Amino acid sequence: MPQVFITRKEHFNAAHRLHKADWSQEENERVFGRCANANWHGHNFTLLVTVRGTPQHDTGFVMNLKDLAEIVKTEVIVKIDHKNLNLDVQFMKGIQPSTENLAIEIWRILQPLIAEHNATLHSVRIFETENNSVEYLGE
Amino acid sequence: MPQVFITRKEHFNAAHRLHKADWSQEENERVFGRCANANWHGHNFTLLVTVRGTPQHDTGFVMNLKDLAEIVKTEVIVKIDHKNLNLDVQFMKGIQPSTENLAIEIWRILQPLIAEHNATLHSVRIFETENNSVEYLGE
Amino acid sequence: MPQVFITRKEHFNAAHRLHKADWSQEENERVFGRCANANWHGHNFTLLVTVRGTPQHDTGFVMNLKDLAEIVKTEVIVKIDHKNLNLDVQFMKGIQPSTENLAIEIWRILQPLIAEHNATLHSVRIFETENNSVEYLGE
Amino acid sequence: MPQVFITRKEHFNAAHRLHKADWSQEENERVFGRCANANWHGHNFTLLVTVRGTPQHDTGFVMNLKDLAEIVKTEVIVKIDHKNLNLDVQFMKGIQPSTENLAIEIWRILQPLIAEHNATLHSVRIFETENNSVEYLGE
Amino acid sequence: MPQVFITRKEHFNAAHRLHKADWSQEENERVFGRCANANWHGHNFTLLVTVRGTPQHDTGFVMNLKDLAEIVKTEVIVKIDHKNLNLDVQFMKGIQPSTENLAIEIWRILQPLIAEHNATLHSVRIFETENNSVEYLGE
Amino acid sequence: MPQVFITRKEHFNAAHRLHKADWSQEENERVFGRCANANWHGHNFTLLVTVRGTPQHDTGFVMNLKDLAEIVKTEVIVKIDHKNLNLDVQFMKGIQPSTENLAIEIWRILQPLIAEHNATLHSVRIFETENNSVEYLGE
Repeated sequence: MPQVFITRKEHFNAAHRLHKADWSQEENERVFGRCANANWHGHNFTLLVTVRGTPQHDTGFVMNLKDLAEIVKTEVIVKIDHKNLNLDVQFMKGIQPSTENLAIEIWRILQPLIAEHNATLHSVRIFETENNSVEYLGE
Repeated sequence: MPQVFITRKEHFNAAHRLHKADWSQEENERVFGRCANANWHGHNFTLLVTVRGTPQHDTGFVMNLKDLAEIVKTEVIVKIDHKNLNLDVQFMKGIQPSTENLAIEIWRILQPLIAEHNATLHSVRIFETENNSVEYLGE
Repeated sequence: MPQVFITRKEHFNAAHRLHKADWSQEENERVFGRCANANWHGHNFTLLVTVRGTPQHDTGFVMNLKDLAEIVKTEVIVKIDHKNLNLDVQFMKGIQPSTENLAIEIWRILQPLIAEHNATLHSVRIFETENNSVEYLGE
Repeated sequence: MPQVFITRKEHFNAAHRLHKADWSQEENERVFGRCANANWHGHNFTLLVTVRGTPQHDTGFVMNLKDLAEIVKTEVIVKIDHKNLNLDVQFMKGIQPSTENLAIEIWRILQPLIAEHNATLHSVRIFETENNSVEYLGE
Repeated sequence: MPQVFITRKEHFNAAHRLHKADWSQEENERVFGRCANANWHGHNFTLLVTVRGTPQHDTGFVMNLKDLAEIVKTEVIVKIDHKNLNLDVQFMKGIQPSTENLAIEIWRILQPLIAEHNATLHSVRIFETENNSVEYLGE
Repeated sequence: MPQVFITRKEHFNAAHRLHKADWSQEENERVFGRCANANWHGHNFTLLVTVRGTPQHDTGFVMNLKDLAEIVKTEVIVKIDHKNLNLDVQFMKGIQPSTENLAIEIWRILQPLIAEHNATLHSVRIFETENNSVEYLGE
């Protein structure tokens, strides 16, 4: 039973800010640099979701990519696209909105939903810029 | 003895169609959507082949990339480039031409050929579009 | 009154074949090469539509990109995406489906529709592959 | 005396919001859609600056790209990178921060500075996303 | 008679060095920076050749892209790919190998050859890196 | 304690040549092809460094990307950018400058430096061209 990995790419544009309320402005700037800007900044984020499973005999699909895309859009993208990650996103409340933490929380949302489709979530990867990316494999 | 992975990227342009002959047109459209179009559609596919091995002392090569490119072109690309994956490709006969199944069959072709070069096939990855890709690691 | 150019990128995946019915198979292959394959081949085409105009005072928009994207999708993309350019596309009937001719016909569809939005169609550009593209400026 | 065009690409990440204070929330959402989000959103913007001139005999340069990059960075990028285009950017005060208007204002900053280097500013192009871009040629 | 522009992209990898023999090392470094390194450096150059003409009735082609690609490869690419632009390239002898000058000389080679195919050379564009490019339109 | 992978992309432009001094010119050309050119050739290399670790509670960072970028630039990039990999690079002395060997040596430089930041070097990946890349995981 061959295991194949399928990956779906989606995009979202969001504002965020990295800072800690109980740190001084100097400490925030030393650690977070320009990312601490009080009036926010933003990115075109790219989200890559990889799912693992055995291609079904009839369709040749690990999982219908229409279903995967639909889950990612309705459960994740609509909640973060054109939003402020610090202020507008319920599942990031109380969490520092680093790309690392965003990837972990998106994993937690998607993992059980993928499992309902006889497939296994393998990886959540986010590009914050072309040069900076993170990946979480659930462990 | 360090193990290094080398990856070669190739391209092919092909037509295909996803459908099952013993399903109704409605069932085919429900599952495969626009991919069931009777008159075919097509893609610029990108194929990434990754090989693992120890760099040789003289050349510093895991495997000469000219040889790897030549194998991929003569054994895979000429059989699928500017072809119809449902009608023209011997090694896909009787197989649903999903990108998953295509990756598995390409693995089966390349694995023994790479082994003749003191290297090990590690991954076959195919991008059907910029947003949809599959990867097969042989297991 | 500054003139600004705005460009919207869209994608479509289609099958096509280049051949002339009144030429021999040899002549077709000599001129069109692998693109003459009787069972079709296909591409992920990229369509870039550029519109020229003066940004409006209230919005700062030459033309609302939502409107431009909507026009391109409903008047062009739905007619060619996941289609066979030789068989399925009404506006290409009787026309050799080269990328050049496709760009000219898309121009003819879009030009009057853009003009209704107080803007001017400037360019229709199509990438057939990463390496081959055409552009039509309406003249 | 051949005229050659040279282009330098730079990047900036910024937050912005499109809205008009004297419009109702409904009107703002009808026109600007998700871009009207009160808590901002953001992008990885790409800025392309094209300069025209005759290559100098000694250097073969229209203009030293180090000088062009330096001007673009010190006069434009530092003022907008990791900033809020509505709140933090002096040269955008009172102007709707559409990408069109941003391109026009960047042109106004750069045009006299390029002229001091015996070259002519030809184009300011900004990609807001991979799919949406604007270009201003100064007319 | 519509005029359409077609563009072919090719690649070449070359070494070069920017320096003037009759300048001091200090002067060379002040002007050319790291590009003056005595032991050379190199790039993956991308060459884009754009040709203008009327699509022919039979083929729908401005010019057969196979012919355009063949001309660019045999008349330009083989002379510069995996070469040293200062030492190995006949048509650059005595010319500072800036990307600007390279584009002008490639234009001079290609212009008469394209004219033999009932088409007109419109542009030679070279990317030295993703961020730095030049374009020559023959004037 | 979730483990997250973060990746930083950097660029360098370098010249190199593949040849063995004790082989004949014919043998060198048979094995290395155009890469044996006596006057060198070059590439725009892309370097991807991936680090693994647990996001810290305060910052949400596996490791501050500013620190990672700084280490990669000062310990690797300045030693190879705009250099000749055969002649100018101390850490490649006596080693065939294949991309495989370059990746292994960069790993040896970076591994202890990353370890000082409570993180683990996971991968060094180098693209020599868009089509050819290598990856070393330290084993």
